[in-house]
Amino acid sequence: MFKIITTEKNARRGEFTTVHGTFQTPCFMNVGTAAAIKGGVSSIDLKDLKCQVELCNTYHLHVRPGNKIIREMGGLHKFMNWDRPILTDSGGFQVFSLAKLRKIKEEGVYFNSHVDGRKIFMGPEESMQIQSDLGSTIAMAFDECVENPAEHEYSKRSCERTTRWLYRCKEEMERLNSLHDTINPHQMLFGINQGCTYDDLRVKHMEEIAKLDLDGYAIGGLAVGEPTDVMYHILDVVIPVAPVDKIHYLMGVGTPSNIIEAVARGVDLFDCVMPSRNARHATIFTWNGIMHATNKAYETDPRPLDPECDCPTCKNFSRSYIRHLFKAEEQLAGRLAVTHNLYFYNTLMERIRENIEKGTFGTFRAKYSPLLASKASI
Amino acid sequence: MFKIITTEKNARRGEFTTVHGTFQTPCFMNVGTAAAIKGGVSSIDLKDLKCQVELCNTYHLHVRPGNKIIREMGGLHKFMNWDRPILTDSGGFQVFSLAKLRKIKEEGVYFNSHVDGRKIFMGPEESMQIQSDLGSTIAMAFDECVENPAEHEYSKRSCERTTRWLYRCKEEMERLNSLHDTINPHQMLFGINQGCTYDDLRVKHMEEIAKLDLDGYAIGGLAVGEPTDVMYHILDVVIPVAPVDKIHYLMGVGTPSNIIEAVARGVDLFDCVMPSRNARHATIFTWNGIMHATNKAYETDPRPLDPECDCPTCKNFSRSYIRHLFKAEEQLAGRLAVTHNLYFYNTLMERIRENIEKGTFGTFRAKYSPLLASKASI
Repeated sequence: MFKIITTEKNARRGEFTTVHGTFQTPCFMNVGTAAAIKGGVSSIDLKDLKCQVELCNTYHLHVRPGNKIIREMGGLHKFMNWDRPILTDSGGFQVFSLAKLRKIKEEGVYFNSHVDGRKIFMGPEESMQIQSDLGSTIAMAFDECVENPAEHEYSKRSCERTTRWLYRCKEEMERLNSLHDTINPHQMLFGINQGCTYDDLRVKHMEEIAKLDLDGYAIGGLAVGEPTDVMYHILDVVIPVAPVDKIHYLMGVGTPSNIIEAVARGVDLFDCVMPSRNARHATIFTWNGIMHATNKAYETDPRPLDPECDCPTCKNFSRSYIRHLFKAEEQLAGRLAVTHNLYFYNTLMERIRENIEKGTFGTFRAKYSPLLASKASI
Repeated sequence: MFKIITTEKNARRGEFTTVHGTFQTPCFMNVGTAAAIKGGVSSIDLKDLKCQVELCNTYHLHVRPGNKIIREMGGLHKFMNWDRPILTDSGGFQVFSLAKLRKIKEEGVYFNSHVDGRKIFMGPEESMQIQSDLGSTIAMAFDECVENPAEHEYSKRSCERTTRWLYRCKEEMERLNSLHDTINPHQMLFGINQGCTYDDLRVKHMEEIAKLDLDGYAIGGLAVGEPTDVMYHILDVVIPVAPVDKIHYLMGVGTPSNIIEAVARGVDLFDCVMPSRNARHATIFTWNGIMHATNKAYETDPRPLDPECDCPTCKNFSRSYIRHLFKAEEQLAGRLAVTHNLYFYNTLMERIRENIEKGTFGTFRAKYSPLLASKASI
């Protein structure tokens, strides 16, 4: 259940209630693809990092350890020891980006596992069944994430198929939720808007999927290589067509600046591997811009990564020490950096929420949208 | 300052007081070679794992980041954010095991860095200077760790040189500790007994170094490939010659069973990379023997790694989840396993201490010395 608490222009401050608790929006989901955050951060740590929702991946967990294993263990919440909401990606994106030799048919997609090459079929029903086994709080509909660029004609036919798949997803979830031994009988379903970079297809597809009255609406197929301006333009075009009383989720986005700009356009929910992936390559997000922890200038710098941050890394360790850990290739380097970056993203969302509440989001955006994308002064 | 609280036969229950606090013996030091525990465990975590003393390595820290950097940062305690005792290995062992093209002379050892190949000279004075820069609680004397097997004649001449080096170490430390800007003016010095597997050399060398009235006495050059029986025999021969009122440190040892057997022979202090190294290869020490976390039998096992353990890993995560993390090559696997193994070792020492206090160490040894070396029943 989504509730809008207040708005500032198109930016929305809301809350989303689930069977695993309520989370505040705008919200950034922390990505634990294979039921674990990269860099050795545990589900216990995540609570100290202000994480509200963890995102896991249907495709990865289907391939390994297998959804039946996780179902036998009582679902993903018990498996990972995480009692807050979990959103599972449908596997669609991974089928199209990772899997080899895929073949798309009306019934679904035939492809080979990227781990061991074995043949797998996944369609709307299979994706729903896997996500039901995982027992996530929110399941994503199975869609085709069209490559960018794509022909208008192909994109149109793909959107129409994705809409037909969505009806099948909804029907299958209703069936699964009503079974007596379902892990989470209250599982929710979000639909995914596609249409590549074509305004008409985006609008038409959103109008079509809005008819299903789903628990939330996601915008997929963006941040896949198109220029940022194009992404913002699509948001400007499609968000006004999305149901206003439903949560809006922009998939796989993005930089702190992207998030601020998307919130300004009415997006409520985000996920991205950027904070953890960049951290492992020593790229650190701070309130003063982006820094590289391996910079020679930090060799004897006693300050924390970000003097404005009170995360477990910044409270305890210096730039000098963290630079050494990266140079010595100690795993602790990655963990401390991921810890900081996730905390930074979750705190960014907290500040965005506070600013919308106070009606100062416009001022916040004007300052931080450019600043957070800049190189930090040493 | 070492104080023996009680004994049971040759096993001693004591405490060692330093400028960075008192630790209880028998004690196992947790190895953070390059100023970090492998597997992404931080100095903050270590306190939850009952770690009393962290061991760091002079050679590694000299090569990277450089002892001058650490000195500038206020010493190793501030650098790592660890306020309990730190023991630094002298670099002798690494010079002989890691470095290439080494040349041993009376003044010290010429060798090439294993990181970048640059030429380095290290002798007793250099080792003391580096350790003084690091500001560790306890510095180890610079010695030659003779390869095993070695000729009696070579070992004899090496021991004599190591004794001469020890006098130089003591003199240099006294000079360094008296300087006005020394990081830790209360730094202590432990001597190292060598002599390969020759009883006469071991005894003679221990008698020689005992004359220096050092803060502690270590037995080096064991656990380097000789049979376990030979190691125990050397302990039987040399411990009775070590000063009874000084702490006895067996370097680089070992398995839980080795530790129990060495405590029974009068050893007070240990260090070994085994708990962390084995953990990263999914080998887990439990109170029921040794297990491999990747065993197929654990695929849907909801129990913790060790049902008798209350470490942060065992309190929160199942065998099934940890097996999955290892299979998926998630860094969290290593961190959870290292966390458990270090906690296990530190708890083993706690139980050893409790049993010596109660006079039941003999019974404890009879049960656990074989059990902890066995394969755990599933």
